[in-house]
Amino acid sequence: MDRQIERWGMFEAAFAGPAEGNPFLAVTLDAVFALGNRTVTVPGFYDGDGIWRVRFMPDAEGAWQYRTRANLAALDGCTGGFTCVAPAPGNHGPVQVSNRHHFAYADGTPYFPFGTTCYAWTHQPPEQQRQTLATLAQARFNKLRMGVFPKHYPFNENEPLHDIFVRGADGKLDFDRPNVVAFRHFEQQIAALGALGIEADVIMFHPYDRWGYCDMSAERDFRYVRYLAARIAAFRNVWWSLANEYDFLLDVKPIERWDRFFHLLEEHDPYRHPKSIHNGEETMNYDHRKPWVDHVCIQNWDVKRTAAWRREWGKPVVNDEMEYEGDISLAWGNISARELVHRFWITVTRGGYGGHGETFLHPEDLLWWAKGGVLRGESWRRIGFLRDIVEADVRRGLDPAPTADWPWTRASAAFDGDVRLIYLGEHQPRIWVHGLPAEDGDYQVDVIDTWEMTVTPARRVPPPAFPRQRQRGGALSAAKPVAAFAVELPGRPYLAIRVRPARGL
Amino acid sequence: MDRQIERWGMFEAAFAGPAEGNPFLAVTLDAVFALGNRTVTVPGFYDGDGIWRVRFMPDAEGAWQYRTRANLAALDGCTGGFTCVAPAPGNHGPVQVSNRHHFAYADGTPYFPFGTTCYAWTHQPPEQQRQTLATLAQARFNKLRMGVFPKHYPFNENEPLHDIFVRGADGKLDFDRPNVVAFRHFEQQIAALGALGIEADVIMFHPYDRWGYCDMSAERDFRYVRYLAARIAAFRNVWWSLANEYDFLLDVKPIERWDRFFHLLEEHDPYRHPKSIHNGEETMNYDHRKPWVDHVCIQNWDVKRTAAWRREWGKPVVNDEMEYEGDISLAWGNISARELVHRFWITVTRGGYGGHGETFLHPEDLLWWAKGGVLRGESWRRIGFLRDIVEADVRRGLDPAPTADWPWTRASAAFDGDVRLIYLGEHQPRIWVHGLPAEDGDYQVDVIDTWEMTVTPARRVPPPAFPRQRQRGGALSAAKPVAAFAVELPGRPYLAIRVRPARGL
Repeated sequence: MDRQIERWGMFEAAFAGPAEGNPFLAVTLDAVFALGNRTVTVPGFYDGDGIWRVRFMPDAEGAWQYRTRANLAALDGCTGGFTCVAPAPGNHGPVQVSNRHHFAYADGTPYFPFGTTCYAWTHQPPEQQRQTLATLAQARFNKLRMGVFPKHYPFNENEPLHDIFVRGADGKLDFDRPNVVAFRHFEQQIAALGALGIEADVIMFHPYDRWGYCDMSAERDFRYVRYLAARIAAFRNVWWSLANEYDFLLDVKPIERWDRFFHLLEEHDPYRHPKSIHNGEETMNYDHRKPWVDHVCIQNWDVKRTAAWRREWGKPVVNDEMEYEGDISLAWGNISARELVHRFWITVTRGGYGGHGETFLHPEDLLWWAKGGVLRGESWRRIGFLRDIVEADVRRGLDPAPTADWPWTRASAAFDGDVRLIYLGEHQPRIWVHGLPAEDGDYQVDVIDTWEMTVTPARRVPPPAFPRQRQRGGALSAAKPVAAFAVELPGRPYLAIRVRPARGL
Repeated sequence: MDRQIERWGMFEAAFAGPAEGNPFLAVTLDAVFALGNRTVTVPGFYDGDGIWRVRFMPDAEGAWQYRTRANLAALDGCTGGFTCVAPAPGNHGPVQVSNRHHFAYADGTPYFPFGTTCYAWTHQPPEQQRQTLATLAQARFNKLRMGVFPKHYPFNENEPLHDIFVRGADGKLDFDRPNVVAFRHFEQQIAALGALGIEADVIMFHPYDRWGYCDMSAERDFRYVRYLAARIAAFRNVWWSLANEYDFLLDVKPIERWDRFFHLLEEHDPYRHPKSIHNGEETMNYDHRKPWVDHVCIQNWDVKRTAAWRREWGKPVVNDEMEYEGDISLAWGNISARELVHRFWITVTRGGYGGHGETFLHPEDLLWWAKGGVLRGESWRRIGFLRDIVEADVRRGLDPAPTADWPWTRASAAFDGDVRLIYLGEHQPRIWVHGLPAEDGDYQVDVIDTWEMTVTPARRVPPPAFPRQRQRGGALSAAKPVAAFAVELPGRPYLAIRVRPARGL
């Protein structure tokens, strides 16, 4: 049997054994995969009905062999192998941090997260889940925040499709026995997202609970993290989000436990999927500089601080809750579409990445942000348009103009080599000059209407010639203009200017 | 001669003497005004042509007597008096800090600054100045920022109407000889503003200079401050703004000199008009907690920080440059009218005060912000509407809801006793509950459209009943609603909610 697995695809091996006692607790299993002298150790897991599995995502082509190790004779020393072949078209591998503040797929293709949020979509009725996937297939989001556990919260009072642990004879959840049906379903939806090119930003813990998932002991928490890693790490589109609003759980899970979750993932995820932790009230209260944090996932509406956050942590900043488009009574969920699009543009042109969410009141409480379904708002199309703009030209990642430099505390600009993206937002100049090239050249310069989603060639005009004047430190401003040319604008807000080399266009 | 001067009006006495040498330098003059056993010392000044003057603004009714003191016999020991009578209608006296973060006139009438900016209006051709006053008579601004010195800056390249010092035979400015014609004109315009109920926020220094006003020695600077105080402190509508963007002058005027300017004003202004200093780049770099700073005058676009600034300095915060409505190429001068109105509302509903400015490109460089003339924008009417809203109900001053409390980092609310003003800005809930009264009562509740300038009675609805949920610190949210009722809203941005007692309406 020479099975062929594409590079970054998933190899799975199953092993039968006696399912006595509680195999989730009693049995340890892993497998060592080898390609030549290189080995990778992969955890296995119990999948119910006397079946154990090992999943492996190979990252190099060639003939891989494995050998299992277990404390149960039936599972120990099992061997096998497969041939890893070239990836299929569209398979770029898992996403990793790249160029310090950015991301790329394993094959080097840049990845710019434009995410959305459906926290509890896998817990809704199957038809609603199909609708969510159909919607995602039409939208342009490439990351989805989604929880393992079901959600108890305003507008989220229904029971989940599956419990995450099985219920005992007393009807109570047995936190020592994962419900493999729930996990299989969750995995199926991770795979469905993967088929759409969407990264699954898997939220492992959250405080929105009435079933007891919040209050598991440290030992059970750790076991759950290991189990989850063993089951889903081999899906190439997995990201690890330790929590949503972890700080609302500090009474039951102190900081040391969150650190340990990170460590457990480093121990059990050989692929090193991106790992982050998401705050509730205080953006700064987990030290995102800790080496096991790959990127900074935050909620913060104050998006002009994006460049400062990048400097503070030295990692990619993904602002997954800059408040949501919607009209509910909760202030994090009722900004206008225009405001959310504005915040996305500010975030991206200050070197960060954003997350979308939608919270419109619905008679049956079907809010996209929690349950998926259909998108009702106006921001998602414009966010997709921004993604197209970024993907068309950016290669390394957009790095912000220094906000210490005039006028980049007020307006926003980011650069990637010769590519410049200037976002003017609430500003409506008739002439703009800052951030444009110092030397004239063969540039294509366009004006982008971020709301109307239009791109129009810009009219270049001479830069304004202002009198010399005193500035910070008593220096006189340069008599010569700050750029080789200026751009004429129509004098309305929410415009951007794009500059890129004309060569090759 | 029993002259009658109204309370907070201006008494002036003139004295002739020999105008030998340079009387500006050689002669010292003051007058001690007495009402019973109380005395007030008032500086005098030379007004050219052998005439010295003393001006005094009495703050108490009764028979005042004065006696001059001078180092010139002709001016020394002159006596006289007047009777101070009740103020005329509309004369509320000078403005002072009141209730820590607010202002009131001397008679206790609350004063809520809604200012605008015409830095160099008194240096424009007379017809343009008449036009400025006519415009101000129609608008609802009650404070005007204006410089003593002329302005050299983009869009400000014309020569001033009057030099501030006289020119010598060599054609150069003689910084030892004030041009009394210029000062008389400046005073006339202060009085004209006073007749319109507008406070003159007099900017004493600024860096926009090609004539040498910036570069006077410390001795000349101090002499100028004393001279200005002696001339204009008796105008009841004067405020002292030490500078516009003082930090761009630190190379020639170190911090100690700015401190000394404050001290000189304390020495020479017996009325203690409000004193402040205005930053360029860094809001925090003058320590506004110094006791001689009466209120904090800043420029900062980041208006959601207003409540934090109040806490930081413990004084009224007047944000006189939250960026201007306009379309010029400079980012501080090209925000949309909607954005400026939005920032005003945020500022006021976080316990601060704002300043307006308008910078629309004009073929003859007639920009309101510098030269006055006519208003071309759309924000000024809406700012006047906000002033009407505030003046209708606020008595003590609006103090912000604590931004540490949900949701007041995101939305804005301020209270004055039973009066509540909640501004939702970019938020567009269909139902709003936060900040509404905890006990139901006989309130008048209105929805205000801040752009359309409409006030509509609100429809009260039951507050949302949400499931208990875990929050910060692990506490469960209250099962009972946060307010006695909620308000139904049309689901669009830029709305405010006003709550006030129905009694007496």
